[in-house]
Amino acid sequence: MSRLLVRNFSISLDGYAAGPDQDLNNPLGLGGAKLHEWIFATRSGNQMIGRDAGSEGIDDDFFSKRGSGVGATIMGRNMFGPVRGPWSESNWTGWWGEEPPFHHPVFVLTHHPRPPLEMRGGTTFYFVDGEIEAVVSAAFQAAGELDVLVGGGASTIRQCLRASLIDEMHLVLVPVLLGSGERLFEDLGASADNYRCIERVCSPAVTHVRIARNDRDDATPR
Amino acid sequence: MSRLLVRNFSISLDGYAAGPDQDLNNPLGLGGAKLHEWIFATRSGNQMIGRDAGSEGIDDDFFSKRGSGVGATIMGRNMFGPVRGPWSESNWTGWWGEEPPFHHPVFVLTHHPRPPLEMRGGTTFYFVDGEIEAVVSAAFQAAGELDVLVGGGASTIRQCLRASLIDEMHLVLVPVLLGSGERLFEDLGASADNYRCIERVCSPAVTHVRIARNDRDDATPR
Repeated sequence: MSRLLVRNFSISLDGYAAGPDQDLNNPLGLGGAKLHEWIFATRSGNQMIGRDAGSEGIDDDFFSKRGSGVGATIMGRNMFGPVRGPWSESNWTGWWGEEPPFHHPVFVLTHHPRPPLEMRGGTTFYFVDGEIEAVVSAAFQAAGELDVLVGGGASTIRQCLRASLIDEMHLVLVPVLLGSGERLFEDLGASADNYRCIERVCSPAVTHVRIARNDRDDATPR
Repeated sequence: MSRLLVRNFSISLDGYAAGPDQDLNNPLGLGGAKLHEWIFATRSGNQMIGRDAGSEGIDDDFFSKRGSGVGATIMGRNMFGPVRGPWSESNWTGWWGEEPPFHHPVFVLTHHPRPPLEMRGGTTFYFVDGEIEAVVSAAFQAAGELDVLVGGGASTIRQCLRASLIDEMHLVLVPVLLGSGERLFEDLGASADNYRCIERVCSPAVTHVRIARNDRDDATPR
């Protein structure tokens, strides 16, 4: 059965998924890049940017499997780009260049309609409005037998968590303080009761935590 | 040199130090007791309540040293008790019975004056108003050569952190979601830059994190 997953989502010790003042030059906000340093210390993180460097181990195990078994991705508009409001003036096609690393359909949440954007290598961006349940359903359709990944950002994941739509989430607790920014966990309320921790492992750099919805008795080993 | 310390302070995966609706029956709020389960699984946590049970190991190492080298404690009024407003009608003497486990001066922050309360076993509660800096200074005076512990709750620790008064803080990250409640980290702002992680260790139950102010080059091994 296909699952709705979050993988490799980093938060600071004080709970922020991005620092303050996110913009084109600081897509993760001030200080937010610290949250991803662990990725660029891994072998797979370096391969992603075409470099032959980095180490293997726990962090690399997690990051190298980021796309494994995934047939569609959902992301918030702010993860797709820094453009706000209507798209009319923009020819923005995402942060990832002409061949984005998804290689499958990507559903971008936005209140502003825009035709699908077909990129090289099998990635097509679909710009979708409406209830999160409907978007998730469309993504499952597109993914076929495969899983659907919620890529981020924090507000998109939060929306899915509050509706208890996420089956499994892999968080990376980075031992830094950002002081302010955008939180991942904010007023989950009763939906928090629907989740439990199924794995927790410290690497030398970070702590990996996996949580699963309680009805997923089949929560899979990674 | 004496230090201002926080020890064994538990927060949930979503950053809460207490659940919602704290009152006399739920001093840690709804679900908040989950944050302290790790303590009652340790040998020293059981000894604290007069029981010969619990296990040794990392968690016990931390918890058994909770009072080591401490000459005074600071706590917020809500940690002292559930009474709000003026004390006049109350004969509340704390959660800890006739012989509290501090055995040294304890400074309780309150806007409502009250004479000191001398308990058995060397604990005296002083009820103090005014700037946090002045309270910390009085506690250092009372502690002599020893360290001062900020016992909690979250808002008292936050007040000390924002003023960068805390030298070292030991946090316990408990892998549960509470959904709502009282946060430890809230708008630290620039004071976050003054701290760094100096230790992080996973036990089977929780993750221990120690942070220290950057000017504490002598951050001590535990």
